[in-house]
Amino acid sequence: MIVVVKNGTDKQKLQNVVQYLEAQGLKLHISEGVERTIIGLVGATQEQKANLNVESLEGVEKVMPVVTPYKLASREFHPEDTVIQIGDLTIGGNELQVMAGPCAVESREQMLEVAEMVKASGARILRGGAFKPRTSPYSFAGLEEKGLQYMAEAREKTGLKIVSEVMDPRSVELVAEYCDIVQIGARNMQNFNLLREVGKIRKPVLLKRGLSATIEEWIMAAEYILSGGNEQVILCERGIRTFETFTRNTLDLAAVPIIKELTHLPIIVDPSHATGKWNLVQPMARAAIAAGADGLMIEVHPDPLHALSDGPQSLKPHKFEFVMKDLQKMAQAMGKTL
Amino acid sequence: MIVVVKNGTDKQKLQNVVQYLEAQGLKLHISEGVERTIIGLVGATQEQKANLNVESLEGVEKVMPVVTPYKLASREFHPEDTVIQIGDLTIGGNELQVMAGPCAVESREQMLEVAEMVKASGARILRGGAFKPRTSPYSFAGLEEKGLQYMAEAREKTGLKIVSEVMDPRSVELVAEYCDIVQIGARNMQNFNLLREVGKIRKPVLLKRGLSATIEEWIMAAEYILSGGNEQVILCERGIRTFETFTRNTLDLAAVPIIKELTHLPIIVDPSHATGKWNLVQPMARAAIAAGADGLMIEVHPDPLHALSDGPQSLKPHKFEFVMKDLQKMAQAMGKTL
Amino acid sequence: MIVVVKNGTDKQKLQNVVQYLEAQGLKLHISEGVERTIIGLVGATQEQKANLNVESLEGVEKVMPVVTPYKLASREFHPEDTVIQIGDLTIGGNELQVMAGPCAVESREQMLEVAEMVKASGARILRGGAFKPRTSPYSFAGLEEKGLQYMAEAREKTGLKIVSEVMDPRSVELVAEYCDIVQIGARNMQNFNLLREVGKIRKPVLLKRGLSATIEEWIMAAEYILSGGNEQVILCERGIRTFETFTRNTLDLAAVPIIKELTHLPIIVDPSHATGKWNLVQPMARAAIAAGADGLMIEVHPDPLHALSDGPQSLKPHKFEFVMKDLQKMAQAMGKTL
Amino acid sequence: MIVVVKNGTDKQKLQNVVQYLEAQGLKLHISEGVERTIIGLVGATQEQKANLNVESLEGVEKVMPVVTPYKLASREFHPEDTVIQIGDLTIGGNELQVMAGPCAVESREQMLEVAEMVKASGARILRGGAFKPRTSPYSFAGLEEKGLQYMAEAREKTGLKIVSEVMDPRSVELVAEYCDIVQIGARNMQNFNLLREVGKIRKPVLLKRGLSATIEEWIMAAEYILSGGNEQVILCERGIRTFETFTRNTLDLAAVPIIKELTHLPIIVDPSHATGKWNLVQPMARAAIAAGADGLMIEVHPDPLHALSDGPQSLKPHKFEFVMKDLQKMAQAMGKTL
Repeated sequence: MIVVVKNGTDKQKLQNVVQYLEAQGLKLHISEGVERTIIGLVGATQEQKANLNVESLEGVEKVMPVVTPYKLASREFHPEDTVIQIGDLTIGGNELQVMAGPCAVESREQMLEVAEMVKASGARILRGGAFKPRTSPYSFAGLEEKGLQYMAEAREKTGLKIVSEVMDPRSVELVAEYCDIVQIGARNMQNFNLLREVGKIRKPVLLKRGLSATIEEWIMAAEYILSGGNEQVILCERGIRTFETFTRNTLDLAAVPIIKELTHLPIIVDPSHATGKWNLVQPMARAAIAAGADGLMIEVHPDPLHALSDGPQSLKPHKFEFVMKDLQKMAQAMGKTL
Repeated sequence: MIVVVKNGTDKQKLQNVVQYLEAQGLKLHISEGVERTIIGLVGATQEQKANLNVESLEGVEKVMPVVTPYKLASREFHPEDTVIQIGDLTIGGNELQVMAGPCAVESREQMLEVAEMVKASGARILRGGAFKPRTSPYSFAGLEEKGLQYMAEAREKTGLKIVSEVMDPRSVELVAEYCDIVQIGARNMQNFNLLREVGKIRKPVLLKRGLSATIEEWIMAAEYILSGGNEQVILCERGIRTFETFTRNTLDLAAVPIIKELTHLPIIVDPSHATGKWNLVQPMARAAIAAGADGLMIEVHPDPLHALSDGPQSLKPHKFEFVMKDLQKMAQAMGKTL
Repeated sequence: MIVVVKNGTDKQKLQNVVQYLEAQGLKLHISEGVERTIIGLVGATQEQKANLNVESLEGVEKVMPVVTPYKLASREFHPEDTVIQIGDLTIGGNELQVMAGPCAVESREQMLEVAEMVKASGARILRGGAFKPRTSPYSFAGLEEKGLQYMAEAREKTGLKIVSEVMDPRSVELVAEYCDIVQIGARNMQNFNLLREVGKIRKPVLLKRGLSATIEEWIMAAEYILSGGNEQVILCERGIRTFETFTRNTLDLAAVPIIKELTHLPIIVDPSHATGKWNLVQPMARAAIAAGADGLMIEVHPDPLHALSDGPQSLKPHKFEFVMKDLQKMAQAMGKTL
Repeated sequence: MIVVVKNGTDKQKLQNVVQYLEAQGLKLHISEGVERTIIGLVGATQEQKANLNVESLEGVEKVMPVVTPYKLASREFHPEDTVIQIGDLTIGGNELQVMAGPCAVESREQMLEVAEMVKASGARILRGGAFKPRTSPYSFAGLEEKGLQYMAEAREKTGLKIVSEVMDPRSVELVAEYCDIVQIGARNMQNFNLLREVGKIRKPVLLKRGLSATIEEWIMAAEYILSGGNEQVILCERGIRTFETFTRNTLDLAAVPIIKELTHLPIIVDPSHATGKWNLVQPMARAAIAAGADGLMIEVHPDPLHALSDGPQSLKPHKFEFVMKDLQKMAQAMGKTL
């Protein structure tokens, strides 16, 4: 951490800054330049830095972090890739995983039908929302536990693993009991109490990037879960909010190699929510694999027209089958299997 | 709601669209133009529109809403201003209210000290965080119920009303029991389960705008609370996330007159979080009043240097006193009292 | 175009709106709904719509366009792909084109050296800036005509085509004389006088997307050039400005399939400027091809350390060679040649 | 400038970094910390820093600037406020200036009529566009020199000063000849050749902030003009592009006190372009003055409905008169005159 002192700051104020920092038990390294005096902080812990307040001091121009504020998530701390094992499949290794299914679980029939189709196309994980975050209080909000039961039944029948979102700290146990992967949605990426709760379970957590979260904030959210003792975190890029309105969000694919550089965690991409348009799912799914993603999350609905949520971005099953075949070529070009 | 049909869509597909819409019980108004065929939907309810999926239909180019997706929050539905009464003070009327105090409640002494100072400067509401959302799991996260007790004690000693944030549906009852106003923070603006919980209480809710929430999404969050039966919602503009990094956020003051135009709810402004810099608090507080805000939320800390949260944006008490005096002139120029 | 009338607008005001629109020679289609009265405008020309002012009228709530504001660039107007022929190579067809070279032309030696290397790696177009837009007036601004001469000499020696940026309407003729492709940079995407000038020449124009341009504004910039009579426009996605600061810009790869859907023009991607980091060039170049781009623009510098511009995002020649080989696999997977 | 070296960089690579920096003639200050080695650069000039490429070096993690990249514009370099004198009026002093008039000059009659009205309401500067940047090539683009003549005639008749935009380096001389203030529009804020041209004239330049320009980039654009020898630069905040679509742009009023802190230049605010809605002009004009702006730019049109540009954001003259009266109170509260 580096503290830049304002030009023309008098000795007394500089002394105050130094005393404050030393009082926190920090070792300082002061360098008086032509333009500015600079104070380097040596050996501060993550906790010390997270609670320092030096910008409030008179005479301080700015504070610049030298190292990242996360530790457990960092590749520096944990150099090898984390590969997550879920039964017989892995996420983060050589095998690409596709999580496919409807935005919302709507009925038993729908889930069983979609599960068979998704499996036939080669996906190994079934997605479906039982608890749905909806912008409007008047929209369908999910079947709740009933929905999880339908998903569990679909797993039994097909052997697919299942992933579903948890929105409320009070439901973490319930969702974790039913699901193979527990999802934290974009709007809850900084719902810190929810993060602490999923940090306590011992099931993989799929952590979606917040609508306007920087990559650093996203990694800090993962750090919450890791610091709770749950080491199975999968990140999911799903688009960020920008001024462009043609797509629902702007898919930030550079996040894929960046997450690989900064952390050891697997990362998948959700082209359905990122674009909000079914016809952009195929090109963006291809691009995600080409960028190095470990997998995809794709919305598939047997009847998008009557979907209770996110119909416009859902693929019909035959289109999904076609996309999965097409993605084989990409997987091969990347030296991976799908 | 208007459905625009793609150029060159054949009769059969157009017929499908029409049938789907009629099957939802909607009356249609079809107009065939030179460039496009357009279908107007007459008399759809809020619920019908929130669950329509017509964009998934082949032949549909786009769907354009004609009216807003909220109702209870709209000025069209409720033309007179909502004025919220809290004991002897009002929010939304002629009286400007300032909510002042530290970002986090740190100790009993701190709260009692700050409360006296804040009161002496003329504010009538004390703020303080007992549950703190923090980007880092290593930062101070609040004193929880202990913090609420200190605030309640400060209220007893000073007569100030108190406002504090609730982050977890499990704590709503607790926070509502202690506080005069329950705050929903920016990161929880779309924590829908939390919104439903505060919709059930009968205390005023201060709803901060999300970091990247559009004005419409923000009003929809208010609609959640209103639709739960709680009519006492106060909005708070606190800056949005943009590409500009000099300030912590970009204060969107146009939101003030816009909220007044679209809704009947009171709106206050938080210049401390919006800018992240104490020296910008005064000019932005002035500007907020000039834009028509019903009040302000300002961070005040007796010792920003040792603040456990957000020191850089906190005013020292003597500076706060100076700001309050200065704001009198603005209040007068706006025909209001402070 | 659809005009939505405010709820409760009286007959006289509605009549004013109608009269104004009819006075512009437009045919109207009025539909009185339960919530709003809606006026559809039939048969307005591009020019009429571009100059209408109906939002200023009392009683008008909003105006919603039904069709796009561009015409010549639209796929509706020109259904087949535009394939641009430059000597023996094509852009927009089955052949991927890579434009490679240094950000700035720095010396004759540098250009000749880089040209040989770029050619050896399989690229067919040499890039280099002779006129450089620089944020600081103190940065190197280019060798101007001298730079163009070095590029032309490199073309003679290698057979590579050359592309370079024009920043000033006064230099369009000069740059067009030397180059095979004339580039409009991101900062000049809405320099309308410059667009008009390159609309007059008969050489291909590479039009980079503005830092914060919507896709529609970008297509409108192309429309400027096309409406001047120059039909050879190549679009270039190079990242947009968002809140994320880890990369220089956020590469919006969804723009590739969207441009293909809305227009008939070829589109390439510049992963160097988009990310600002050389180590992100390879994954983003792969992803761009996978998204369907017609080519790439990549910065290559024999000695990035001593580059006079954009060193941090430049590949060294041996790294570029490696990337080009790797991209062959992607090209094949897409059924294209590189 | 501080160079952070990657953890685990070997001696040889560190040596390369040091040699490169010393070869640029810089004095170094190396500090080996527990987490990172840090190199401070002492005494580099603006030019040296603007052309350094150290991020390209292996082993370099990041480069952090310590001081701002601008000099002539900085308050550090020039502590007193710049007050610009135009005939008998000043900009940047105690007197608030309002620049009012239509977006585009449309006819002689319009300008003379509007000039009288604007003057009667108390404004002292007349605005009007003779060269108009338009998103669509099909929109009205201005009367060019004819428009400037009408403005000059209006000046003669009323004594108002006049301000108009220049878009093309070839027209700078012409516009400067007619106008008292030459305006650089938002889209041309980084049209560096245009900036260099207005740096050569000796008339005040009104420099609008770019749609997505950071405050630092905006000041750098001013630095271009100042470094050309023209010391009369007035900045104009006119809204930035964000995800919010309710307003045309998001007015960033915090920019006003920030510009005052970082630079010595006057700054005015344009609420018309910032919001795009005439009914938001009054509250935002008030807020701008309250934030400390030196003046305003407001669109006024006698007949917004038939305006050839930006009708929806223009005030009618009687509304403008009302606004001017109202702003008197704000001016007084700020201790200024209007």
